[in-house]
Amino acid sequence: LRYKSQFLYPTLQSCCCRTIHSDAKPKDPFTLAQKDLTSLYDDIKKELFVSKEELKSLCDYYFDGKGKAIRPMIVVLMARALNIHSNRAGDLIPGQRSIAMISEMIHTASLVHDDVIDGSDKRRGKKTINDVWGERKAILAGDFILSAASMALARIGNNTVVKVLSQVIEDLVRGEFMQLGSKENENERFKHYLEKTFKKTASLIANSCKAVSILVNSDPEVHEIAYQYGRNVGIAFQLVDDVLDFTSGANHLGKPSAADLKLGLATGPVLFACQQFPELHAMIMRRFSSDGDVDRAWQYVLQSDGVQQTNYLAQRYCEEAIRQVSMLRPSPERDALIKLTELVLTRDK
Amino acid sequence: LRYKSQFLYPTLQSCCCRTIHSDAKPKDPFTLAQKDLTSLYDDIKKELFVSKEELKSLCDYYFDGKGKAIRPMIVVLMARALNIHSNRAGDLIPGQRSIAMISEMIHTASLVHDDVIDGSDKRRGKKTINDVWGERKAILAGDFILSAASMALARIGNNTVVKVLSQVIEDLVRGEFMQLGSKENENERFKHYLEKTFKKTASLIANSCKAVSILVNSDPEVHEIAYQYGRNVGIAFQLVDDVLDFTSGANHLGKPSAADLKLGLATGPVLFACQQFPELHAMIMRRFSSDGDVDRAWQYVLQSDGVQQTNYLAQRYCEEAIRQVSMLRPSPERDALIKLTELVLTRDK
Repeated sequence: LRYKSQFLYPTLQSCCCRTIHSDAKPKDPFTLAQKDLTSLYDDIKKELFVSKEELKSLCDYYFDGKGKAIRPMIVVLMARALNIHSNRAGDLIPGQRSIAMISEMIHTASLVHDDVIDGSDKRRGKKTINDVWGERKAILAGDFILSAASMALARIGNNTVVKVLSQVIEDLVRGEFMQLGSKENENERFKHYLEKTFKKTASLIANSCKAVSILVNSDPEVHEIAYQYGRNVGIAFQLVDDVLDFTSGANHLGKPSAADLKLGLATGPVLFACQQFPELHAMIMRRFSSDGDVDRAWQYVLQSDGVQQTNYLAQRYCEEAIRQVSMLRPSPERDALIKLTELVLTRDK
Repeated sequence: LRYKSQFLYPTLQSCCCRTIHSDAKPKDPFTLAQKDLTSLYDDIKKELFVSKEELKSLCDYYFDGKGKAIRPMIVVLMARALNIHSNRAGDLIPGQRSIAMISEMIHTASLVHDDVIDGSDKRRGKKTINDVWGERKAILAGDFILSAASMALARIGNNTVVKVLSQVIEDLVRGEFMQLGSKENENERFKHYLEKTFKKTASLIANSCKAVSILVNSDPEVHEIAYQYGRNVGIAFQLVDDVLDFTSGANHLGKPSAADLKLGLATGPVLFACQQFPELHAMIMRRFSSDGDVDRAWQYVLQSDGVQQTNYLAQRYCEEAIRQVSMLRPSPERDALIKLTELVLTRDK
């Protein structure tokens, strides 16, 4: 297949690393991170402390502790694994804990603005902020969460960390912009999709992992391992998300299926399907805007092996993530990060 | 008058500082800052360098060099005055120049979002970004300019500066939120208005002045002088802006007069007028939303001495700004900062 050229797997190397490690059964990542995650949302709310009652309820709305907390969980586990790798106690240092919080805050701020931009009325089974409070206040709430995250970032007091996480905010905006205007030709399209996926999803995870490394280790190779684990898991996570948009019912995911098609977005499954059904090309170009496009595209995708191929690609990224993190000294947290890639691949919501 | 209680002038002290200094005729602030400002907008555009042509045109739209550039001008003059005060060469160090750019970028990002929030279609005689490109792209453009500003801020490499300017971003959002929901009782209203004015306008100027001081001086008293000059000039600047909304025609200011009333906002002139014409109270409470409210409120303001009182208040803030900056060692730039307060008070657009 055409898309399986080297640009798809820029850092992938052949490996069979699933068998390298983990003689003992790895602990469940959620269980292992729980200690640090328990009070995380309370701390975020303290961070967002504001006197105006309404602004407070807006900002707290998504920090209800009901999210998957996948980002802070990865950051917490990576921080512990890195601390052990660096001959320190496993426990998080305060700056690392802040980074876990900041990663979730930046993510949430970008969701709030994305929902305004997409005009979405549902997210995680709840009404969106723009649906409940209106667009104006949703824009402000996003700005506010982001500014609170910047304040918390500044307080960590490490310039390299500030740079690394500022890059994330820029990537998120550039990624969203790429998503709005994806009018590239067919050959460029997959590359564009993966770049957008990196910027919108993986950059935050990759750079947060790098940031917790910077705080306890001076070896750039270790930072790179942390970064590459986050980058590869992040891309895999989004690829699976894009698959679930086709395979998961509305009740399950908390948002209507084929939401991406409805927004005019061609993700992995459609791009792979287009290789088998060139009829999709014109629909992709007009962003599924003609009557019946969404349904027809959906049918083509289900008839194609687009879903399977996207899952396969996600699996390859997870393998690379495992290869990277396996270079760290063994620890329960390292093994939980390996285990986590399985959960990323097999989740159904 | 009731409003002239101590909370209005928390830092004002009796002074006659206009005569303390300046034996020679001070240079025009614009002329003096010109050298540093000339290439500033080009540098901002480089900062916003992006490959996507459209994102670029959006971000460049307001950095056309046609604005008053009042913020970077104050920052540049303050930096030079502080350098001389601190026994350094007057020329800006790179970090100070970055702060001048960042101040204008943060300001512009907040304008872009404010225009979306207010649904404004005109700004500085141009169509707004949301009017030309739509709301979605305007939200993103604001986010992007802000993220570029954060990146530039991180590159300065001084943690205290990062904290000081992150505070500005938070203040801007809180100020805008205060403006959306000003339902305070009559006694609280003026205090609320001044606090909003500080957060939305003066915080950026005050903290930028403080930031350029931090880079060259270790004396907190000097930082405080810089901060207080910026704070007082900033509040005066906004008070005059609020007056001009009543006294300046649409052709002049590039935006329709009484824009604030139309947005439901009660600024200085209305709040003072309400003391003479209690009929305004109900209109303020319903945010001038009933038919004819805007016209009637406008008439009351013109019949009252609200404009005069607001101007008088702005003058008091300028006097305090002069008192503060006069504590710096004499320099052409210091005197230009003094001269600038006159321009703030007498500008008619």
